[in-house]
Amino acid sequence: MNKNIVTIGGGTGTFVVLSALKNFDFNLSAIVSMCDDGGSTGKLRDDYGVLPPGDIRRSLVALSSATKSLRRLFDFRFKGGELDGHSLGNLFLTALEKTEGTFHKAVATASEVLNVKGRVIPVTLNNVRLQAELENGKVISGETNIDIPKHNPELKIAKVFLRPEARANPEALEAIKKADLVVVGPGDLYTSIVPNFLVGNIAKAVRFSKARKIFVCNLMTKNGETNNFSVVDFVSVLERHLGRDVLNYVLVNSKRPGSIRLKRYAEEKAQLVTLSRDYKNQLNKTEVLKANLLTKSGLIRHDPKKLASQILNLL
Amino acid sequence: MNKNIVTIGGGTGTFVVLSALKNFDFNLSAIVSMCDDGGSTGKLRDDYGVLPPGDIRRSLVALSSATKSLRRLFDFRFKGGELDGHSLGNLFLTALEKTEGTFHKAVATASEVLNVKGRVIPVTLNNVRLQAELENGKVISGETNIDIPKHNPELKIAKVFLRPEARANPEALEAIKKADLVVVGPGDLYTSIVPNFLVGNIAKAVRFSKARKIFVCNLMTKNGETNNFSVVDFVSVLERHLGRDVLNYVLVNSKRPGSIRLKRYAEEKAQLVTLSRDYKNQLNKTEVLKANLLTKSGLIRHDPKKLASQILNLL
Repeated sequence: MNKNIVTIGGGTGTFVVLSALKNFDFNLSAIVSMCDDGGSTGKLRDDYGVLPPGDIRRSLVALSSATKSLRRLFDFRFKGGELDGHSLGNLFLTALEKTEGTFHKAVATASEVLNVKGRVIPVTLNNVRLQAELENGKVISGETNIDIPKHNPELKIAKVFLRPEARANPEALEAIKKADLVVVGPGDLYTSIVPNFLVGNIAKAVRFSKARKIFVCNLMTKNGETNNFSVVDFVSVLERHLGRDVLNYVLVNSKRPGSIRLKRYAEEKAQLVTLSRDYKNQLNKTEVLKANLLTKSGLIRHDPKKLASQILNLL
Repeated sequence: MNKNIVTIGGGTGTFVVLSALKNFDFNLSAIVSMCDDGGSTGKLRDDYGVLPPGDIRRSLVALSSATKSLRRLFDFRFKGGELDGHSLGNLFLTALEKTEGTFHKAVATASEVLNVKGRVIPVTLNNVRLQAELENGKVISGETNIDIPKHNPELKIAKVFLRPEARANPEALEAIKKADLVVVGPGDLYTSIVPNFLVGNIAKAVRFSKARKIFVCNLMTKNGETNNFSVVDFVSVLERHLGRDVLNYVLVNSKRPGSIRLKRYAEEKAQLVTLSRDYKNQLNKTEVLKANLLTKSGLIRHDPKKLASQILNLL
């Protein structure tokens, strides 16, 4: 019987993981964060009171077996005019939520149109906003404000939470329960990954799932979220939500990108995520898997094929 | 072998004819006018330089064998916000024209998504604007300005023409050539029907086609376009473009709607289209077919089933 793999995240990182795994015979379920409130998604939430379509759209496209035409169409963004910045897929999901009555049905219908292999599961169907409390006690409201960041990026995020509190989508709990492998990340730690664990019983479900759990660690830090974070820092934040030693593995890139590739990240105050020398003492039972996971050129991203081969080793 | 039926028009009338015929084993081709420039369609033409999606969308939905969910989605209109008045199907076709590179390919891909039975054929792939010359010599530019109307509705339209001139879509010519039956209308005479015959060799192709040709006459006049028109007046305008006696039949409704249904039309200065007493002298070889074609209640529209049964009689 095919293995059940659950990914947890949102954004580009999840897109890469899903792209890596979609060509194998797994039952793939993508659990997606639901707190995006910027750009096209934010405007649609504000104007039409819908749930955030952006991250769902990306995961649908990642798992789509439809023609290239249709996948490209869903990611198409209008430039200029009234529709400036909107992606067609976001508009499609927004209209579907209106005609179908619920976001749940909208995702189901869009999955049919895009001939999705596997399932894309919003972590919650509640309308929530992400909040971040900084180390000085100040609270930043809204995912996009945390993301930009609109706060002094030198100040650490003390914790993130959702307003109002959110119930887990039962489909997400079911998928985690049945999983053989749970893949967490990569992605923006506080704005794409952790928000999933703030929802109802999601963290508890991961903790008690019989699945092996792996965290695909980010390649780069993000200014205002994870400045100076090492691999252990990422794991520590996740453990605060999931519990100590819940993650069986953390997958770490071992290949250093060239200085030219790093340069444009330096401008955004993003640094390579590295392993501190004494990581073994700090990590207890979480095993570090090191491998060259890097794409050959361009943006510093995980290579889907290299990622797939590491993840396949665990099954 | 299945009969080839070609409809020529645009707008709601064509939607009704296609709905009437789609449930039979015909090879249906819908040739659609391409001069709409109002509302959602007009804004998309202005902002993104695309060809008019609105009438094409309606015909695609009419011929769609997709789920009701998907057909409803394509006709969904946003209310309020930035997207106010836009239909999702129009946005879909606009984005597709951008990602596919041509409107032709956009229609092909949308036809696949909507599982269209038959073909929807833009009468031209040129970017044109409809112009109307009134009896006082004044020229009104733009379909929507003629349609509203922005001119004194007492003034008759002397002629309509396209700027720039347009070449016929070869697919349209081919469909007309192979047709067993050509169904013209119903629809706004000068803004939905005649614009098809202004394109390249379309009128000539209809004239020389071996097909029987039937005009489904409008039920009501339209203020500023066809005030006081009788059935013969409609036929005369069409003959001016197609040639005398090219239409074999004109299908005329014989059932008078009740006065309550007529009342709201009176407010829009729309009247019942009637047959003048001496129509036989005026029509020469075009045969008048009279039947009750009316829907039972609501708007004064052709009933798809009644329409289908009359059209089937001709095959």
